[in-house]
Amino acid sequence: MSKSLRGLFVGRFQPFHLGHLEAAKYALKRLDQLVVVVGSAQYSHTLENPFTAGERVMMIKAALDEAGFNRSSYFIIPVEDINYHSIYVDHIRALTPHFNLIFSNEPLTKRLFKEAGVKVEPIPFFKREVYSATEIRNRIIVRDDWESLVPKAVAHFIKEIGGIERMRELALSDKPNS
Amino acid sequence: MSKSLRGLFVGRFQPFHLGHLEAAKYALKRLDQLVVVVGSAQYSHTLENPFTAGERVMMIKAALDEAGFNRSSYFIIPVEDINYHSIYVDHIRALTPHFNLIFSNEPLTKRLFKEAGVKVEPIPFFKREVYSATEIRNRIIVRDDWESLVPKAVAHFIKEIGGIERMRELALSDKPNS
Amino acid sequence: MSKSLRGLFVGRFQPFHLGHLEAAKYALKRLDQLVVVVGSAQYSHTLENPFTAGERVMMIKAALDEAGFNRSSYFIIPVEDINYHSIYVDHIRALTPHFNLIFSNEPLTKRLFKEAGVKVEPIPFFKREVYSATEIRNRIIVRDDWESLVPKAVAHFIKEIGGIERMRELALSDKPNS
Amino acid sequence: MSKSLRGLFVGRFQPFHLGHLEAAKYALKRLDQLVVVVGSAQYSHTLENPFTAGERVMMIKAALDEAGFNRSSYFIIPVEDINYHSIYVDHIRALTPHFNLIFSNEPLTKRLFKEAGVKVEPIPFFKREVYSATEIRNRIIVRDDWESLVPKAVAHFIKEIGGIERMRELALSDKPNS
Amino acid sequence: MSKSLRGLFVGRFQPFHLGHLEAAKYALKRLDQLVVVVGSAQYSHTLENPFTAGERVMMIKAALDEAGFNRSSYFIIPVEDINYHSIYVDHIRALTPHFNLIFSNEPLTKRLFKEAGVKVEPIPFFKREVYSATEIRNRIIVRDDWESLVPKAVAHFIKEIGGIERMRELALSDKPNS
Amino acid sequence: MSKSLRGLFVGRFQPFHLGHLEAAKYALKRLDQLVVVVGSAQYSHTLENPFTAGERVMMIKAALDEAGFNRSSYFIIPVEDINYHSIYVDHIRALTPHFNLIFSNEPLTKRLFKEAGVKVEPIPFFKREVYSATEIRNRIIVRDDWESLVPKAVAHFIKEIGGIERMRELALSDKPNS
Repeated sequence: MSKSLRGLFVGRFQPFHLGHLEAAKYALKRLDQLVVVVGSAQYSHTLENPFTAGERVMMIKAALDEAGFNRSSYFIIPVEDINYHSIYVDHIRALTPHFNLIFSNEPLTKRLFKEAGVKVEPIPFFKREVYSATEIRNRIIVRDDWESLVPKAVAHFIKEIGGIERMRELALSDKPNS
Repeated sequence: MSKSLRGLFVGRFQPFHLGHLEAAKYALKRLDQLVVVVGSAQYSHTLENPFTAGERVMMIKAALDEAGFNRSSYFIIPVEDINYHSIYVDHIRALTPHFNLIFSNEPLTKRLFKEAGVKVEPIPFFKREVYSATEIRNRIIVRDDWESLVPKAVAHFIKEIGGIERMRELALSDKPNS
Repeated sequence: MSKSLRGLFVGRFQPFHLGHLEAAKYALKRLDQLVVVVGSAQYSHTLENPFTAGERVMMIKAALDEAGFNRSSYFIIPVEDINYHSIYVDHIRALTPHFNLIFSNEPLTKRLFKEAGVKVEPIPFFKREVYSATEIRNRIIVRDDWESLVPKAVAHFIKEIGGIERMRELALSDKPNS
Repeated sequence: MSKSLRGLFVGRFQPFHLGHLEAAKYALKRLDQLVVVVGSAQYSHTLENPFTAGERVMMIKAALDEAGFNRSSYFIIPVEDINYHSIYVDHIRALTPHFNLIFSNEPLTKRLFKEAGVKVEPIPFFKREVYSATEIRNRIIVRDDWESLVPKAVAHFIKEIGGIERMRELALSDKPNS
Repeated sequence: MSKSLRGLFVGRFQPFHLGHLEAAKYALKRLDQLVVVVGSAQYSHTLENPFTAGERVMMIKAALDEAGFNRSSYFIIPVEDINYHSIYVDHIRALTPHFNLIFSNEPLTKRLFKEAGVKVEPIPFFKREVYSATEIRNRIIVRDDWESLVPKAVAHFIKEIGGIERMRELALSDKPNS
Repeated sequence: MSKSLRGLFVGRFQPFHLGHLEAAKYALKRLDQLVVVVGSAQYSHTLENPFTAGERVMMIKAALDEAGFNRSSYFIIPVEDINYHSIYVDHIRALTPHFNLIFSNEPLTKRLFKEAGVKVEPIPFFKREVYSATEIRNRIIVRDDWESLVPKAVAHFIKEIGGIERMRELALSDKPNS
């Protein structure tokens, strides 16, 4: 793949884990610059989406710095979901630097960008059965080991902002008085 | 039922099938003009809502033409969902030609129009166990016969726009890296 | 707890039942004024949310009057949901009189107000297994005794506005022709 | 006009002034209950809309109490604007207790309710050239006498919450660096 | 220009006038099918946008029928504005049949479609100083001759639905009590 | 001012000019990290807001790099406007890294953050009569010298993406056929 390319990497990053980090490395080998899109930016404080977009921007920045990424090689852009798939690609385009391709394994994302004429590339999975955000969120709730699945800087950040306590409190929900 | 009546027929039409066509025929026998409302207009590219509103407008037009409907006897109007049921009837009224009644078997739709003082009429089901959009979408995914359940013009249109490929790609989703 | 306090009590109140009434009494003993927030104000005409916000305002007013609450001791304010938790506390603050604390047992609500620096107090449950809005809605559908679970004024109001008929019609939904 | 009537009185109430109070008295003489709708509820912190909906609820409550209104004779309901006039009447209906008529002199409001089949009644103006919210907001900015134009309780409330300072700060806007 | 082309014609059509009709004729000579997009569909009941989208659909249909357009040669699709220009083209695409080009003289529309790679064609103006919707709306208010500027069917429709009375009532607005 | 501070700098940056650059330098001298919030992110393609948020992110990055800013010292975050001032501070907080103070001269922004308990600092203006985005946009339209008012990298970027042509085309608007 030739140089002077900018590519997208889209995720919710709830939280950003070692699988995401490997994917970012893989993508950046094929690009000049990577645009990390922090999707579903408006969601937070749920079991599926515990962290705010700002918190996710912080953890991604910390993880990429820790991994020695060149700071001029990436952008991190939060993007709110619009539940209207036909305009999704233009919504991303409006909020991000111009890009030439997107790295994704997600069927909907792949299809939408393909229909819009954007080049889509797959990313090899990295120990997908454990490097999974769902798995990590579950382990945090049940007090199983989760720290080994995320970059050290991410584990530190989550603990520092009270993220563990937040997730465990949210997990108590049984909807009283409703 | 007297003449010079205009009536609504509301559906998602994902896709428009032979049961819908029979319903449209039934309704039009009792009306001067039919307003086909293509609901959930903003949704597309999901397994439940694979087609855009524009694509659904096209397939309904093609099916009604093929069935020999008089072109001055119907309107096809896409209407976006607003997740606020109390204003649904006025939302429909704002976007459609004036109507005197609605044909519907759907309990929520019936209730909302009834509370708004609009006359609601049922439509006899036409082989409901097979003429079902859910059934058709499933058959497309699992490569079972689906073409016999939709008007020829609809089958042709879906294939022409790459709808089969779109649905099968979307069906691969297993949410990696999330 | 000292005097001249104003506190929030947030619920969907679909419908307002005797457990809610006990909670309101408990809260008002500790406050000068209670602000009853009728949440999810935009939803109605579903099995989960059968009543409009205006109808819920009416049933709460009727129940509090019947229970002899001093009319200057409470506000009833409908608030629409915004599916964006990070701005929820400010959204409530914008639409309600200034408050000093919130009574809640709901983990998400507790967490959001706690992170915003608002004092959160629990409310003892009152026969929670029966005084539950879900239980009441189910009993209305299956024609079991539900009236004993709500204030008399609420039962009267629900019947008067055709709420029973509305809920049973909505329960018939089997999504034909979709 | 016969009894057991409930009527609407809609305004932005930025702020609630003596003209509004006279209008409320006039309306309540013809009604059993008045529903005061605090419109444009989402707007605040501008020169046109300085106060939040919650603050406006407070000032109206204080003014009606001070004027000796029976507390069971009125509701105060904040309603957010939806910039879609065709659904406005149903939006109001969803959030308010059932009403039989509306008092309004405003041409758009009158027209919308009339088209929806709601009875519309005019309200005689009360010294309209001075009892005007625009006039009052201007006087606050230029430090002219404004307190004589609002109920005492409203003047007290505005000063207590720092409303004067807020309005004068907002008036400094000259959009630097934009 | 070769055949089997479908083109867009976008307007607010408040109301549809003889200049619009000439433009539609001009466009259709160069196309197989015309998609008339009724823009700003959510707006109505203002001096700038007096008619609902449904009313505008009706007047356009009536005008094209009266002018002898082949009913299979056009679609009329209401589209709500989204105040987010970057996604405008995809929004239109989602709701309309597939199109190959757009006829427009409006700089913003031209630019947005051009940036999206859609072919844009101008339309010669037809006595633009009088065939103007703004001019027509003004004449209706001041009781000057306006009927000569619109198709007969449009004049008839506007009068039939009480459009004249609606516009004159809205023109009375002087915002009392605000 | 002590170290380990993170501060906000909010603007529309249409475009980012030398006054903005001086302000960013001034702010960063007092901070460890600066969070540049690209406001009104959803707007573009108008004379007031010609550039998309993604384009503005690009021009700010290019300007800060050119000026020799340490790349770990700033974040650039696009944030869509929500026309609901009471939730504005929480909206910003949700999408940005945690901050301790905000630099602003804009009265509304200052007031909203002050009411939310955030420390607000002014920024000395830098030749405000010329380093103004409004002035620059006007000069681009009328073909006056504008390049001397923006960082070289910004001038280059605007020309490269066809921004001059876009602005001049948009300036032709005279709303035909409306």
